[in-house]
Amino acid sequence: MAKSQPLFSLLLFIFISGTISQSIIQLSRDHDVYCNSWRFSVETNDVGYWDQVPSRCVSYVQDYMTGDGYRSDSEVAASYALGFAKTVEIAGDGKDAWVFDVDETLLSNLPYYAVHGFGYNLLPNSFSDSTREEVVITISFRTIAELTDRIDCSAPFKLLQRFAHRSESFDELSFDEWVDLAEAPAIQASLNLYKELKQLGFTVFMLTGRSEHQRNATVKNLQLEGYSDWERLILRESSDQGKPATLYKSQRRLELVNEGYRIHGNSGDQWSDLYGFAVSERSFKLPNPLYYIP
Amino acid sequence: MAKSQPLFSLLLFIFISGTISQSIIQLSRDHDVYCNSWRFSVETNDVGYWDQVPSRCVSYVQDYMTGDGYRSDSEVAASYALGFAKTVEIAGDGKDAWVFDVDETLLSNLPYYAVHGFGYNLLPNSFSDSTREEVVITISFRTIAELTDRIDCSAPFKLLQRFAHRSESFDELSFDEWVDLAEAPAIQASLNLYKELKQLGFTVFMLTGRSEHQRNATVKNLQLEGYSDWERLILRESSDQGKPATLYKSQRRLELVNEGYRIHGNSGDQWSDLYGFAVSERSFKLPNPLYYIP
Repeated sequence: MAKSQPLFSLLLFIFISGTISQSIIQLSRDHDVYCNSWRFSVETNDVGYWDQVPSRCVSYVQDYMTGDGYRSDSEVAASYALGFAKTVEIAGDGKDAWVFDVDETLLSNLPYYAVHGFGYNLLPNSFSDSTREEVVITISFRTIAELTDRIDCSAPFKLLQRFAHRSESFDELSFDEWVDLAEAPAIQASLNLYKELKQLGFTVFMLTGRSEHQRNATVKNLQLEGYSDWERLILRESSDQGKPATLYKSQRRLELVNEGYRIHGNSGDQWSDLYGFAVSERSFKLPNPLYYIP
Repeated sequence: MAKSQPLFSLLLFIFISGTISQSIIQLSRDHDVYCNSWRFSVETNDVGYWDQVPSRCVSYVQDYMTGDGYRSDSEVAASYALGFAKTVEIAGDGKDAWVFDVDETLLSNLPYYAVHGFGYNLLPNSFSDSTREEVVITISFRTIAELTDRIDCSAPFKLLQRFAHRSESFDELSFDEWVDLAEAPAIQASLNLYKELKQLGFTVFMLTGRSEHQRNATVKNLQLEGYSDWERLILRESSDQGKPATLYKSQRRLELVNEGYRIHGNSGDQWSDLYGFAVSERSFKLPNPLYYIP
């Protein structure tokens, strides 16, 4: 009896740890199924307004954004945009237009979101500043190593190096500060599409929710990342502040239409880039499970 | 030397078979990444018109439709629809309306598509009738066994039993014949949503691309599957034949608006159910990687 006890304990241990790991695998699988469906509902706009990634989907979103999924989704969407663009008869009067959004369309702010919880505020307010900083740095470095492999740019490392020794929490780095760095990497699939559209003879407009005071940083960033020869970069003027993106962007597109432009294609990661009035002949929704702009 | 030859052959065999299985696994993974992205582009309407599932994605679509993915996507989409519905103030005058499409929204034609290659014509025209039949039956029975587990209905089996002994090819079974059977199972998430909306006090309209001559079969099928108390089932009249779905459905919605109905929500698996004019306050896109209706 005494002899069989260690064996029994061992078997019990194996059984319990097996059950626990099975439960963990099952939970992770259930989360993935749910998060896949959440992303479906985000990308089809079924969710409508949302303010942060559900907590159970943060690591899913991180994997999606830094793995093959996001890159592949962007590439396939761009391939359909190009396929359509090739069917457009370019009149040669310079009026055949394509409209691009900027953030998460031409440029990726993933390095910024990587240090801001991938669309989820991971850090409860009760955390002290030092704990907060430590957590963010741990998350960041793990992610950044993957990021640099994937999006082929050294910006995340530079960003991290710059801020890793700051005594303040990363939370103090606002999105505006990040924009001013002008270090957002190009989304490769969009850059390729952009160049192809230029070659096909499209007149390209950029229509962004960024503000007029961010023009210099935005131009600098776009040029550094390989974008050139756009017709016009349209930013929010002071009179546009507070307007829903759908209204602001529709109004600006209408101005283009009134100037005689034929807007054939429109690429954007938000439905508010694509909906409204003066909409393009075809719209191309790029993936974005990080945030929602109404 | 002679002694080492069998060992060498064995090692070579292990190496080659290892390489081959690795290649197969890699190919299958690449296909899944691509097919996931293809589905993203289908569901966001980036693809625009398409006529069949890409051949490399047929088994992916089959897995998605018969596995957890489709069920979960339908459930999560329905949960957002219900979440919105609960925010609507019901006036009590019977004019607060919700519009549902029928096929792939309230009813699933999966049993039909399971015997029609899951959105892809698997059978080249050069196949003889007997080969064609054999291939279809093999595919069907494998799939049907999974289907009945998943969508909780015996229709697929009944369908198969009925046609398995026919001498004609399955290709001769047109979609209209399938509709006449009135055996399409309910999509469970939609049935639950439907019942909840009725309880909340919404007036429900069904707006389908099916034709007026299919009214009896459609009503019978809907009732058998648990749908009841809808306000009106709108089908294509002869004057609607040939109209793009977007136009036909917009015109019908406009008639409802002109009758004083406030269309709060609209559920459909096609963008042509949701786009156009007289659109609802909120639209809910259900998944459908099987076919596209312009």
